[in-house]
Order: sequence, then C-alpha cells, then structure tokens
Amino acid sequence: MKMTVTETPESKCDVLIIGAGPAGLMTAAWMARSGIKTRIVDKRGTKIFTGQADGLQCRSLEIFDSFGFADRAWKESNHMLEICMWNPGGDGKIRRSDRVPDTPPSISRFTECVLQQGRIERFFLDHMKEHSDIEVERGVLPVSLDVDEAQVEDEDAHPITVKLRHLTDEEAMPEQVKSASGTANGDGLYRSNLSPDDTDDLIRKNREKGGTEEVLRAKYVVGCDGAHSWTRRQLGFEMQGEATDFIWGVLDIIPITDFPDIRQRCVIHSADQGTLMVIPRERGLVRLYIQLKEIVPDAASGRADRSKITPDIIFKAAQKILSPYQLRYNYCDWWTAYQIGQRVAPSFALHNRVFLAGDAVHTHSPKAGQGMNVSMADGYNLGWKLALTVQKLSATRTALLATYDPERRAIANQLIAFDHQFSRLFTGRPARDIADKEGVSMAALRAAFDRHALFTSGLSVTYAPSALISIPPDAAPADAPPPESPHANHPPPKLIPPAPRSPRAARVPIGTRIPSYKVVNQASALPLHLHALLPSAGPSPPFRILLFAGNVLAAPQAERVRAFCDSSLEGEAGLLRAFTPAGTALNSAAAPLQVLTIHSAPREGVELLQHFPAILHPFSEEAGWDYERVWADAPSYHEGWDRAYEGLGVDGEKGAVVVVRPDQVVAWVGDLEEGRALRAFLEGVLRAW
Amino acid sequence: MKMTVTETPESKCDVLIIGAGPAGLMTAAWMARSGIKTRIVDKRGTKIFTGQADGLQCRSLEIFDSFGFADRAWKESNHMLEICMWNPGGDGKIRRSDRVPDTPPSISRFTECVLQQGRIERFFLDHMKEHSDIEVERGVLPVSLDVDEAQVEDEDAHPITVKLRHLTDEEAMPEQVKSASGTANGDGLYRSNLSPDDTDDLIRKNREKGGTEEVLRAKYVVGCDGAHSWTRRQLGFEMQGEATDFIWGVLDIIPITDFPDIRQRCVIHSADQGTLMVIPRERGLVRLYIQLKEIVPDAASGRADRSKITPDIIFKAAQKILSPYQLRYNYCDWWTAYQIGQRVAPSFALHNRVFLAGDAVHTHSPKAGQGMNVSMADGYNLGWKLALTVQKLSATRTALLATYDPERRAIANQLIAFDHQFSRLFTGRPARDIADKEGVSMAALRAAFDRHALFTSGLSVTYAPSALISIPPDAAPADAPPPESPHANHPPPKLIPPAPRSPRAARVPIGTRIPSYKVVNQASALPLHLHALLPSAGPSPPFRILLFAGNVLAAPQAERVRAFCDSSLEGEAGLLRAFTPAGTALNSAAAPLQVLTIHSAPREGVELLQHFPAILHPFSEEAGWDYERVWADAPSYHEGWDRAYEGLGVDGEKGAVVVVRPDQVVAWVGDLEEGRALRAFLEGVLRAW
Repeated sequence: MKMTVTETPESKCDVLIIGAGPAGLMTAAWMARSGIKTRIVDKRGTKIFTGQADGLQCRSLEIFDSFGFADRAWKESNHMLEICMWNPGGDGKIRRSDRVPDTPPSISRFTECVLQQGRIERFFLDHMKEHSDIEVERGVLPVSLDVDEAQVEDEDAHPITVKLRHLTDEEAMPEQVKSASGTANGDGLYRSNLSPDDTDDLIRKNREKGGTEEVLRAKYVVGCDGAHSWTRRQLGFEMQGEATDFIWGVLDIIPITDFPDIRQRCVIHSADQGTLMVIPRERGLVRLYIQLKEIVPDAASGRADRSKITPDIIFKAAQKILSPYQLRYNYCDWWTAYQIGQRVAPSFALHNRVFLAGDAVHTHSPKAGQGMNVSMADGYNLGWKLALTVQKLSATRTALLATYDPERRAIANQLIAFDHQFSRLFTGRPARDIADKEGVSMAALRAAFDRHALFTSGLSVTYAPSALISIPPDAAPADAPPPESPHANHPPPKLIPPAPRSPRAARVPIGTRIPSYKVVNQASALPLHLHALLPSAGPSPPFRILLFAGNVLAAPQAERVRAFCDSSLEGEAGLLRAFTPAGTALNSAAAPLQVLTIHSAPREGVELLQHFPAILHPFSEEAGWDYERVWADAPSYHEGWDRAYEGLGVDGEKGAVVVVRPDQVVAWVGDLEEGRALRAFLEGVLRAW
Repeated sequence: MKMTVTETPESKCDVLIIGAGPAGLMTAAWMARSGIKTRIVDKRGTKIFTGQADGLQCRSLEIFDSFGFADRAWKESNHMLEICMWNPGGDGKIRRSDRVPDTPPSISRFTECVLQQGRIERFFLDHMKEHSDIEVERGVLPVSLDVDEAQVEDEDAHPITVKLRHLTDEEAMPEQVKSASGTANGDGLYRSNLSPDDTDDLIRKNREKGGTEEVLRAKYVVGCDGAHSWTRRQLGFEMQGEATDFIWGVLDIIPITDFPDIRQRCVIHSADQGTLMVIPRERGLVRLYIQLKEIVPDAASGRADRSKITPDIIFKAAQKILSPYQLRYNYCDWWTAYQIGQRVAPSFALHNRVFLAGDAVHTHSPKAGQGMNVSMADGYNLGWKLALTVQKLSATRTALLATYDPERRAIANQLIAFDHQFSRLFTGRPARDIADKEGVSMAALRAAFDRHALFTSGLSVTYAPSALISIPPDAAPADAPPPESPHANHPPPKLIPPAPRSPRAARVPIGTRIPSYKVVNQASALPLHLHALLPSAGPSPPFRILLFAGNVLAAPQAERVRAFCDSSLEGEAGLLRAFTPAGTALNSAAAPLQVLTIHSAPREGVELLQHFPAILHPFSEEAGWDYERVWADAPSYHEGWDRAYEGLGVDGEKGAVVVVRPDQVVAWVGDLEEGRALRAFLEGVLRAW
C-alpha cells in the first residue's frame, strides 16, 4: 500500500459561522458591513428554494430595512392584515366568530408578512455580495472543534481550532433532493427534523473516501447549525425543556375552495376534528398548518413513523376541519411535517468565544411564526458585538460579548413560555358553552392574540439592565403606564411594551428598540423615519447619540445645546475624541460613536449652519458639510407631521439625550447636562482612546 | 479587383424602434410586456453612465410603478421637496425670499425626484430582460427607410423596409469617449447637441469600409432618435418654432459651500449676474444650471463656439451669482452645455405606420425638468396602442394609432407654450421694486411655480375627446370647479386639473389619468392604491371597466349590480364575450377587457362569494377564485381610510362605471344602466369578436 502524506492546509479567520440559515446569514450580514475576516460554511450543497419557515414579523422587517433590503421582502411577500377566528356554532358547524388585526396598528412601519425562506436567504446573500467578499461555502462541514482555554482572554489570539471537511457535490446533496429533481414534493420531510440528522454519517463517509480537510484557526465561532446542532454537541450543552412532542403537518397549495377567508390568516377550531391554521402566502399559495394527532412519536425512540406522513393525510385532516366548506387543489408547492418540542439550551456561549444562535439553542412550535424571526434576532444581537470586539473598539474583550447569552437566552425562555400558553389555547378543544371550563373559549383565544400580538411582532423584546442597558435612578417602573398624550386632537401614543422609562423620554422603553417616527431633514425637507437614520452600517457598527435639541430658537435652549456640544461632545476632553480612534474623523460615518440631532423648533426659522454647532453637521473636504445629521420634528409637505417628540415623550422645549446601540436598542437616556453620566456609560461599552 | 457578392440578410419584425433613450425604451417596455416581435437599435455602442437628464416627475414615477420598478427609482433618487426662491434685497445681496413645496401636496403618491438617466435606462433594460427576449442592439443604425404606400392599410403587411448597418465597436464609440476613458469629464459636450450630429458621417465611413448591412421589413417603425432625428429627416418633417437659441451650461459637482439651501431646488436671481438653478441630486451631488449669456450662437451657422465652453466658465458664473456665499468643489461628476430652441414637429406620424417620439419631435429648455418625462410619456402613449394593433385587438388598424399624433402633439405644443412663459420669468432680470415693470417680480415667479407645478408634474395631461375619450352629454365643462367635499372633517379633494367631468364621478377628469386612492381588498384586507390595480401589464394591454358597485348591502343596489353583470357584462350578448377573443377566458388577466370592482359597503358585512356575481371574481381551475378583483372603499387597519368614492366624486350608494385605458387615462364614465352606451364606446376602440 502506498501512503501519500498530504499536508493539511491551515488558515486563520476572525469569525467562523457554521450554518448558512437565517441566524448564520444575519450574523454574516454584520460581518459583511464591518469588513470582518469571516468564513461561513454549510454542509448542504444547495440552498432552499421552496417552503420552510415563512412568517416575517415587524421587527425582522425593520432589521432588513436597517440593512437596506426590506423593500424586496415587502414587495414579494404576502402581507397579512387580518386574523379570522372560526369556531363551531350551536349546530356544530364552523362559523366566523371574530376578526382582529394581525399586527396591532401603529406599532411599526411594517406589518407581518409571509415569504418563503429561500427568498429571504437570497436577500442576505445579495447583501453580502454587495458589501463584502464573504461567500457561503457549501458542502463544507466541521469535524472537530477545540478551544485553547489558555488563550481565550488574549484579544489577539485565535484560540479556536476547527477542522473542516470539504464534501463532494454528490455528498453534499441529500438523497431526497437527488430523487425529487430539485423540488421537495417527492419527500417533503427531507429537511424536516423528522429526518434523522445526517451530519455524522456525512463526516464518516467523507473520511473513508479520503475527502479533503483543512484546519482553520478562528478568534470566534458561531454555531447556527440548527436543531441537531453539531456545534452545540461539541460544547456539551443539552437542550432542556418539554419532553412531549407534537407533530405538525404543513401543506403549501393553491386552494380551490368556497371557504370565504382563505386569503386571511385563520384559526379554525372544529367541533371535534381538531384545529387548522390558514396562512395566505405569495403567488396565490396558502399554507395549511395542522396538528397531526393520529401520528404520535414512538415511546421508545421518541421518533414518529415517517412513512405514515404524506401530503394526503395532512390535506384530508384539513378538509374535515373545513367541512361543510369544500377544499381541493391541483397544485402543491411543498409539504412537510415537524416534530417539535419546547426546549432551550442552558447556555448560548462558551468563554465568549463560541456562540450558539437560532434553532441550535431554542425550539418551539411553528404556530406563531416565530422561529426564523427569533433566530435572525439572535444573529442581529450578536453580530455587531462581534464586529466591534474584533475591531478592538469594545471597552474590553468581553464588555459587549458577555451580554449575548443573558440577553438572548431570556428571550428564548420568554418564547417558550409564550409557546406553552399559546399551544394550549390553539390545540385545545373549543368550549361548547360558557360552562365548559375544559374547552378553550373564543374569547380566551382572542384575548391571547391581542395580548401576544406585540410579543410575536418582535417589538416587545426588552433587554434587562446591564453594562449595555442603563436605567436612570428616577426611571418609571417597567409596568407603569406611559403618560397620556398632551394633545387631545393628536393620535394616541403608539403601543409601548412594558419597560423602564426615563422622565426625559417618557414614552421610550429602555432596553427596547426605539420607536420610529418621521422627522424632516433640516437642509432638504425630506421626511424620513427615525429608523432610516439608524442603519446597520459599517465600517464599525456605531453607537448613536440622539441629541433631541429641543427648541433651538429659544436663546436659553440654544445655550444648553452649545454647552452640551462644547463640554460633552467636543474638544480634547470630549466624548467624541475619547471614543474615536485616532485617524478617524470625529462624528464621521466611520466613527464608532456618532451624533444625530433632532430639534423641535419651526424648521423654516432655523438655519443649519447658523443654529447648530459645526460638530453636529461635520465638515469634510471631500463632501463639504454633512446635511444628513440635523432633522426637525416638523410638518412635511406630503406626509403629515409625525410629532416625534410627543411620541417619544420628550419635552419640546428642553429636549433630551438618548443613546441607541448599533441594533437600535435604547441604552441610555438623560439630560443635556448629564455628560458625565453619559461618559461613564460609554466607558463600559466602547474603548476609550 | 475582386468582387464578392454577399447576400444581404433579410428579416421581418412587427415593430422597429430606432433609438434606445427614454422614449424608445418606454415604447419597448410595452412591447416586452405584450410579446410583440420587436427590435430596438441604437447607433451608440455604449449606454449612458453619468449626467444627462435628471428630473423624474410624479407621472413618470407612476408609470414606472405601473411597470413595477418605481421602487428602484424612488430608492436611488434624490427627492425634491421644497423650492427656495432667492432674490436680491435692497442692498443687492441675494436673500431667500420664499419657500414653496416642489410638488403640490396630495396630487400623487410620488413627489418629484432626481436620478441620472443611466440608472433609469438600466431599470428599463432590466424590465425588458425580465419580461421578454428583446435586447437593445447597440452600434446599429438605419441607412434607408422606405414605406410602401400601397400596403399601409393592409393589417398583415410589413410595408416598411429599413436597411440597417452594423458598426464595429470602434465606430460606435464616439471619439470623445475613447479619449476620456469612459467618463465624460474630458469633454462634457460629447453627447450635447452642441456637438455636430455624426450619424451621416458614421454611415458614410461604415459603407466605405464595407461594414455589414441587413434589410428589415417592419409593420411599424418608431423613431426615438433624438433632436437630430434621422427618422424625422427621412419623413421630411421640419421642426417648427422659436429661432432664438439659448445656451445652457450644466455642472454636476459635490459642492463645498456656506450657501444654506444647497440641498434644495433653488432659483437664484442675482441683481446683475444672471440666474442660477440649483438641483440637489443623489450621492451628495448638486446640479447647477446656468444660462451662459456671454456665449451666443454664431449668426451665420447658428452654432456656438464649443471651444469657449468649459466647466470653469459655468462654475465661475455660478460663483458670481451666489456671492457673497462661498462655493468651491473638489469633485465634478459631469458637465455639459445645451443649445436649445423651442420647436415642435408638424406631425408625429406618417400613415400611422412610422411614428416619432421624444426629442425627435419636441425640444425646449431644461429648466422645468420636462424633457425626459415628456419623451417617456410619448412612448407610454404609443406603446399600448401599437401592441393592441399588432395583436389585432383594436377596432380597426388605425382606431387606436390615429390618436397618437393629436394626443401627444397637443401636449408638445402646451409644453412649448409653458416653456416660453417660464423662460421669460426665469431668465429675466429681477425687478428692483414694485415700480420696475421690466423686471421679473418674485411674486410673479412664485405664482408661475404654483400655477405650473401641476403641469410640470405631468398629472394635468388631458387628452381631447376622440374615439378614445368619450365626454358624456351632461358633462361639467372643463373649467368648472369640482364639487366640494360633503364631509367637512375630511381632507379636501385632491388637486384636479381642468377637464370635463361626469356627474357620476364628479371629481374624475375625463381624458386625464385617474386619481389614485387606497382601497382595501375584500378577501385579504390588504390596502393598495387604485393605481396598483391598473398595472401596464400584458399579454394584451387591457381596457379596464371599474365597477364602482356602491352599497351592495342595500337590496336595490345589489339588484342593479346583478343587472349590470347579467345584461351588460355576461352571457353571449355581453361586453366581455363581445370584446374577448375566443380561447381567452372572460375577465381573465389575459383578456383585453377586464372588470375591477370597488364597493362602498362596510367590508366586514360583505362576503365575496355571496354578494358579488361570479364574473366579478372569475374562477379558474388552476387558481380557484380570483381574490384580487373586488375591493372596498373602507378603513384599513394600518393605513387609514382614503375615501376613494368621495375623492372621485362617486355616489356611495349608487356607484358608477368608469372605463380606463391601458395607460390609466379615464376614457368613459357612466351609470350602471348605460351598458348600451358603454358598448358603443368600446366598439370604437376594441375589436368585436
């Protein structure tokens, strides 16, 4: 036997992302914008084309918008506006019992919508290509992961060693895809978690064949490799939670039916045939979700008998629930079934070097359309922290990263608690009458929808106090009602999730993403949403000081603004110099700390160059003055007056200072005189130079 | 000498478009959607990358939206919201004298914006590629055009013979581009009309070299080949109009300045240094327009001395006008100069076989940002008429086509009249005081802006009565004020251009594009603009019957709707059967006559399948019921209530019938009982089967 000694190639990167689903791609989006040396690998040789997760919540759309591609999702998706509740009447026949808005009005610029996962992944891939050289390496999977604990605290070290195997195209293609010629119609379960995980099998076979291998040394690794996460297994983290698994069937069809609400999101409780959820989709498709009660996991193995699950069994169950309405179809786009427990990993990170995100650390039922959204939110929370840390712009190596686990694990636990509550209401037998305490009343279901709509929108996510979330001593408690609007004729303040609030911005929940209102550009009269001024941009994800400058035409207030600029922002002792690396222009788009001004004086009376200190609209020899930094809470010519100060609860004369993190989360609120406290906060967050 | 006899290749097409600028590309957009066998040639070997025309008016954006790409233009462009007027004060120094909105509020979903022509052409090219196999053939130019008059009335004939020459890449590249390495900075005049036309020269040289030639037989030819139009010259049409030519200089720079309104559209009249127009653009650029008074065309040749025109001469003139404000720049993106008369061709068509569009038939000054927009509107007017005629769906061969010349020539003449009036106000010396009757007062200029904002938006375009525009006998005269809104608390009706109006839709100008209001989908609760329901779609550009069904929950009105469907729309004698070719499903997306229903009953009380005859939401075995055809004038959950009936002046109980052409222009208005009159109108327009 001849032995060939091949040298295994070795290389280094800053961040290795394992898994190119929504969580991995979202993490990669930040890396792409920040110029971080990143690799992203996925064991699958193909990307997703049809089906899979579908619901896009408001906050996910807001995040897409911050990267610049929400418009693509908004244009292609089906928007869900209304939820119709159907319930058996006295005669046992289903009837519409209620209509509610799917997304509570005025909580976001967006409403919930539905678009197949493959398109969403496409937007991320296009975004990565536009902003970086990072490419998803498909058919590549890790086979070992070692962390050198001696090096984890060394900022410059690459303490993680990962061996990667490169599969052949043949190996990377799942058997089911080969036989189904690209569509999953042949075996809708091929990516379902009802299919056994094939990672170990792929590795073994590739090794036997002598496939190629490489060694990668990384500063950070992010495991986004799904419910069977190989990365999580290497860390030894066991998922914890509910042992009872339900099996859900999913069918995407173009329905032919006389059921009147087929283009609405519906929850249909039948008298004794179970519950059906209808999700209208793009291109005339409708998704039917149904719990397959007749299929139960094997007690010993915990697995369901896959052979019993067919599109027909799902469809027939739906037909029975919809009766006496007729339902048939000529076109099925996709189908699958899931077996879903409600579980959370005990930790999302190891040594703040290896992180887990998405299904790798939380699984739950698909009913509320949360899965993809919460997974993406994990990546969104982690990505900017990683980027600033790799760029050595964080206060310490772990100042930012240490908040990932507590912030996101708390959300995962809330999600499971929500799912428990919602599942019972959803899958329980409908109440026969008021006396029927065992059954689920429509009133209870509706109340649950109302109560949880804000939760499922993703907008109520509130991070607890930490180095990154500062609660002022005089904050209103989390459950105190926000103050009423002073203007009886104006719309009521937008829905505010419970969270502590400062009297300086009494309707801004601290730890939550800042609500968005339209403001008007001082120089161009362009009305734009506040969120549009807070993009997820590079080269370093910026913390932003929102200077609500108040009525700058009143002399004392103009003096306060000037004093804030002089004593807190500018000069050798100022915040901008303190937290901006040498060589980067202060308050420029490249700086990790930037200032955005929103004043409340009548826009026509204000002159940008006269009423605002130069640092608020910084000058460069290439671009002249920056006209995008000073905005007015003022009427627009074509889009009304959004009254941002009132909406945020900021005093129109005196203003306030609000710091938002790179992820638009409110981190600090104070007065223009609180420069010292602001510096103390920033010192815990950003590196002082 | 050896002679090689090469056979000249011959081929046929339905439509040949000469020139791939905005007018030609817009015409091609309709061809692409309609599957018309089309060729489009352009003598230039490269497309435009920087500079050129820039203003995008509301109507152009609405048209882009009808093809599905307004979002791209809207996202990339700079939006112009405000116009600032600057005028010399008593001390002779310029000061801001007024601010007005650039686009009058509420006339459109869009506002005027600015984007370079190259991007706009890109959107058209992408659209063509998405919907057809039509590709622009660059470096191809016609050398002869013959029309066989004996065949022009034969629907099946290809009476036009055009010889095309194919240039080499070298020939198709203008000298100036070769030397300026792709950017036009070296010689900003290379595509300006100050450069002599090189068409004849190109042809001669190519012929001498023995370049390749082909013979094309076409049913229709559209000449969109610019101010020097070769096509127009072949038809022998002489441009008519103003002999006096002005020379305008244009400079696109990133300005460094203390002038406060540099991000606004400005008209700056200096005391004695002339007038400057400032147009803020995308990417921090600003366009400066200035009339170069010191450069006058040579009396004998009519041409200006090109060598005297440089970026510096334009810039220095701008600096003088802006003084005492400082202006400098480090980056110039583009510059040019135009010599512009105000002229219109005597006819836009020959035998309704050869058509002219865009600069080929009208030239005027660039001040109001009209050029590209009016040119595109020519193509938009012509394209659907050509498509339906080629498809033999028009009542006769010329029923539609014969309206192109009168409709668009009238608009060109209005444009020239507007330009005359506006030019004097714009280029005149500012009035020193009220007694100064020679000078232009700011009040006069502002009044002109107000008066003409609707004109320049493109929304006031009103086509005169014709086979395609039917005025009811009891119409309100064009200049009668529209009726007041009956609801004191609702916003006033949107700005309505003067045009005749029917009492059945008292705020709908006949002959004008229908105003757009949001309506709510009956089946899905989705709010959409009426215009979004009227796309410029194929396979045959459809005439649409908008059935304002009124309050369908009232029994007598429900009966009227049923009677309209039974007696006018449906059955063997109905309109849909009469005007839909055999083999095409009635009221389907493929039919040239379609029905869209908008009712005014409370949406929650209405059931699509119960309250509306089946023909209003047609069924197909592939897609089931069509849920996109019935809409409600009702409140939406997230976007308010736009009150379409009130805005259009339609009675909320009794409704009305409005027919819009494929270009969204209101063609016929009547009652639900006027099916006979409706048929008479349609017989003059569409082919009866």
